[in-house]
Amino acid sequence: MQLPEPINNLIHQFSQLPGVGKKSAMRMVFHILSENIQYPNDLIKALSDVQEKIHACHQCFAYTDLDICHICSNPRRNSQLLCVVEKQSDLLAFERSGEFQGLYHVLGAAISPLDGIGPSDIHIPELLNRIRQNEVIEVILATSSSAEGESTAHFIDKAISQESVKRTRLARGIPMGTELEYLDDHTLSRALSSRIEL
Amino acid sequence: MQLPEPINNLIHQFSQLPGVGKKSAMRMVFHILSENIQYPNDLIKALSDVQEKIHACHQCFAYTDLDICHICSNPRRNSQLLCVVEKQSDLLAFERSGEFQGLYHVLGAAISPLDGIGPSDIHIPELLNRIRQNEVIEVILATSSSAEGESTAHFIDKAISQESVKRTRLARGIPMGTELEYLDDHTLSRALSSRIEL
Repeated sequence: MQLPEPINNLIHQFSQLPGVGKKSAMRMVFHILSENIQYPNDLIKALSDVQEKIHACHQCFAYTDLDICHICSNPRRNSQLLCVVEKQSDLLAFERSGEFQGLYHVLGAAISPLDGIGPSDIHIPELLNRIRQNEVIEVILATSSSAEGESTAHFIDKAISQESVKRTRLARGIPMGTELEYLDDHTLSRALSSRIEL
Repeated sequence: MQLPEPINNLIHQFSQLPGVGKKSAMRMVFHILSENIQYPNDLIKALSDVQEKIHACHQCFAYTDLDICHICSNPRRNSQLLCVVEKQSDLLAFERSGEFQGLYHVLGAAISPLDGIGPSDIHIPELLNRIRQNEVIEVILATSSSAEGESTAHFIDKAISQESVKRTRLARGIPMGTELEYLDDHTLSRALSSRIEL
């Protein structure tokens, strides 16, 4: 069955989005066609707006519509405590927890040679600058626990090791509310070897 | 955590799409932001194209970029056999099966008073016209087997009962390759009562 070219093209574009296969993309296109005429306009407008107005914060590289994002410019946050994350959604997870009162440094990605992402792509000179200028006391290397995340943390740890700053990594162990029997072996053995005295 | 307004707005727009919740919409937006600059442009272009060029076929109401879609205008298809479907994706399912050589009539929806869709919204006068003008021999009422689909089929059956045309409905029974033990009761009892002699 041949679909008209504009429909095929929109299906192709939607299926570039994460988590969207060809079937879901097709459903989206037919939904748009059957919806009121206003929706595609609203979507186009929202896309253009994001494209025009959103860019990286000049300081922490989080996405913002300001020069300096509202976290970096919040005087009540502790600028001597930096949390280094791979991406904005990690930052959002910290913000949701409400526990962290310092500032962030968003790398944009983890080092991943296979994807062509090297150490020069993740804003390390800017991190060094911030450490020096703001007299940072502690840098939390909150990259993910994947192989890429671990090696990125290791790389940054070495890159800033000359600075007089405490370097920490998030604790590893058993997630809250987890049944031991369903836990993967790796996490369990890590939790065992890192056990703490009561 | 407050996100910039343009990001929130795009998350809202994406989450209007079928099968997209707030979390997936957020993932899509961050994906777009981290992708190369070209993608949002391509998506905007594809949306505009669909909006400008795609409309309902003047004859069968399938989406097309032509006046009369390529199925209706195909001289090798049997214009005396009409298959009435609720929506374009049903038409595509028939086309994939490759079995059907007649033409379609796309209702656009099933009758559903709760959603404000009444008999006047599903192109029944046009169906009557086509039956008369093309001397149609058989109309297959291939609406879905939901309550709305069944009552839509019933309504159309009555609406065209004055015409000298055969009205059929798809066979109900056990899908190919299904284990009986996993079949729902309704389908099994229907398959039993409609059993055929060998």
